[in-house]
This record gives sequence, structure tokens and C-alpha cells, in this order.
Amino acid sequence: MPARLDLRLYLVTDPVGCMGRDLAWVVAEALAGGVTMVQLREKQATTREFLERAWRIKPICDAAGAPFIINDRVDVALAVGAAGVHLGRQDMPYADARRLLGPRAIIGLTVHNMAELEEAKATDADYFGLGPAFPTRTKPDAPAPWGMDEYARACVLAGRPVVAIGGIGPHNARTVLAAGAHGLAVSSAICSADSPKWAAMELAALHARLWPS
Amino acid sequence: MPARLDLRLYLVTDPVGCMGRDLAWVVAEALAGGVTMVQLREKQATTREFLERAWRIKPICDAAGAPFIINDRVDVALAVGAAGVHLGRQDMPYADARRLLGPRAIIGLTVHNMAELEEAKATDADYFGLGPAFPTRTKPDAPAPWGMDEYARACVLAGRPVVAIGGIGPHNARTVLAAGAHGLAVSSAICSADSPKWAAMELAALHARLWPS
Repeated sequence: MPARLDLRLYLVTDPVGCMGRDLAWVVAEALAGGVTMVQLREKQATTREFLERAWRIKPICDAAGAPFIINDRVDVALAVGAAGVHLGRQDMPYADARRLLGPRAIIGLTVHNMAELEEAKATDADYFGLGPAFPTRTKPDAPAPWGMDEYARACVLAGRPVVAIGGIGPHNARTVLAAGAHGLAVSSAICSADSPKWAAMELAALHARLWPS
Repeated sequence: MPARLDLRLYLVTDPVGCMGRDLAWVVAEALAGGVTMVQLREKQATTREFLERAWRIKPICDAAGAPFIINDRVDVALAVGAAGVHLGRQDMPYADARRLLGPRAIIGLTVHNMAELEEAKATDADYFGLGPAFPTRTKPDAPAPWGMDEYARACVLAGRPVVAIGGIGPHNARTVLAAGAHGLAVSSAICSADSPKWAAMELAALHARLWPS
């Protein structure tokens, strides 16, 4: 039974960003601080390594009731029974992933611009990751950031939950939330923080002030 | 319905080894020359690129009645409906792959030495790729080649079909077949040949002389 989509504070893991600290510790701290959803992103790992990390991180997310999402790899998601996948433009097309993962899986799509938004809207993907909101160093090959006027328009046009991603931290989180993003997807702002837990608490509090529940 | 295992002449694709020639052309020529099984191996491609190549190569194999096998990626195999996967030591563990692909899929395992043979024998994998038989440049990180005495012993102990892989060409194919390998897995000997078709014909003829059907 997959956990329910909750985009408020979405951690995208970055093994390099953890700066030598154990990923499982970072994820556990981040969840304790208020992270609501976790995406395991491994761009250098072998399949075996990716699986081993997924098997370690999934129970930590399960214990916190946070959906555990796999970046790109439908095989890894299927093998460990993850809640779903997040798909970029270089990953499996949405329709194939939905067919393999079934109707209950959470599938998110990266959307870089208005043209990609039109394409993505033709699917019944559960959420869009709208980015980059700001310049980012986690993804060196990322395209240019959205402008905030178009960003606000995209949040309306999306017709489903949208999470802001790309260069997001406490200094600019208000901007994307004011533009209409439902949640904050962060990587280095939590993975690289002195205290991932405090960093998550600060971002969760910011979110709660702009989207009071 | 997956095509039946036929290891006699097993092409493992190498996009670099094709030296700028179209992979679909190389595969079609190789099948025309007598290749009996094809493994699509893509170590640099994105998931999207891997899928696109798989969608191109699969119908060529289907038309020739040759099983189409995916290296490593169970998600790609599931998406395109390949006959199965070949798994190395860095790929998904056998049991997970079998669970995801089902009992009819062809699953092969790489076996580098006697210790790995013992592990692999604990599975019901359909075949073993025993290698490297000889030094190879296609896999720069490959371990040391088997010695031929142990190789012959491994072919007996395997208890299932064995394909020889690693540095195999017309000059040494007899050696591994004499040692007991059922088939020849080749990459550069076909992909990089002036005529992939003639190269396949030569190897197929060699095989037929040592394993007359």
C-alpha cells in the first residue's frame, strides 16, 4: 500500500551533498525535522548499489509514513516496493512507467518550461516537479531557471500538485510558495546542512506559514 | 512468448565497437550471418536512450527468431518485452530479477571464477556467461581470465548451458568449445569486423564443426 502523496517538504537525496555523512542518518534526521516525502536519487551508482541503498532508506521512510520515491529507475522501485518514481526527460516515458508500476504508484514528472508542461499535462502523472526554480549546483546540466511570472502561471495551469525544485533554501522558499507551488523539493539545503534536522524544521515552518493546514 | 535459448553464437552489442556504424545494421548483418541470440549492452546510455535502442533492435531479433536479451536493466526488459536479461555482479540480484520477470524469462549470469560458480549454481538461472575466457578490451575493468583447465571443469560443474565470453574470436573459439562451452559470446569480433555478417558466418561455421547438430 503506497503512502499518500504529501509534497510539503520533499527531500531529494544527493550522496555527494551529504559530504561524507551516512545517507541513512541524513534521511532519518530530515524526516525527524519534518520532511514529508523522500526521493532516492543515484546518478553514479550501479544497479546493485542503488538497490542496496534503497533497501536501507525505505524502512526509514516507511517508519515515518513518508512516501519513498525512486529517481528514474522503475526496476529499483519494483524490486524494493517503493511508493513510486520520479521521471526526468532522460528517463522512462510516463506511459511505460505507469504500465509497469500500476495505477496506485506515485509518478512525478520534471517540467522545465511551458512546452514541457503541455506535454506533461497530457499524462495523469500525480505531481510535477517544476524547476529549476533558481540556479542549482546539484544538477550541473540543468536548463535555465523559470522566471517567477511564468512559474506562477505554470502552477495554475498544471491542474495538479506542483513541487518547486532547484536551488531552493530558506532564503527563497517564500517566493515559490507565493507563486503557487504546493511544496518545496530540496537537496543540498538539507543534505549539506550542518543539521539536516534543523534545516528541515526551518523549511517545514516556512511552508506551514504560507500553506497553513 | 520468449524465444528459446540458443547460445551457439551470442552477440553482445558494443556501441563503441561498432565504430560509427548503425547498431541496427550491425545486428541485422550479424543475424544474417548466423548469430542465434542478441544481448543489448549499454553502459553509458540514459534510460530513455537505452529504451529507444531496445525498441529498434528488438523487432530485428524477433524477425530472426533470436532471443533478445537486455544487459542489467530489468526495467528496460519489462518495458519492451525482451526475452530476458543478463546480470553481472553489479546488477540486480538474480532472485529479484526472476520475481519481476517471471518464470518464462531467460536470465543469464556472469561467472568469473569458481567461487562465483558456486553462488550462481544456487540459482536456477538459465545459462552462465563464463568469462573472461581471454583478455578483453570491451570490458576494461574485467577480472583476470580463467585458465583453460579450470574452465573445462567449470563447464562440467555448471550443470546448465554455458556460453564463453571475453576476447573470443575465430583464432581461439575452438579452445573454449573444446573446453566444453556450449556457445560463443562475442562483441568486438563481430561489432568491429569489416563485415559483421562474414565474421558471424565464420564463427557459426566454427561452432558447427565442434558441436555438429
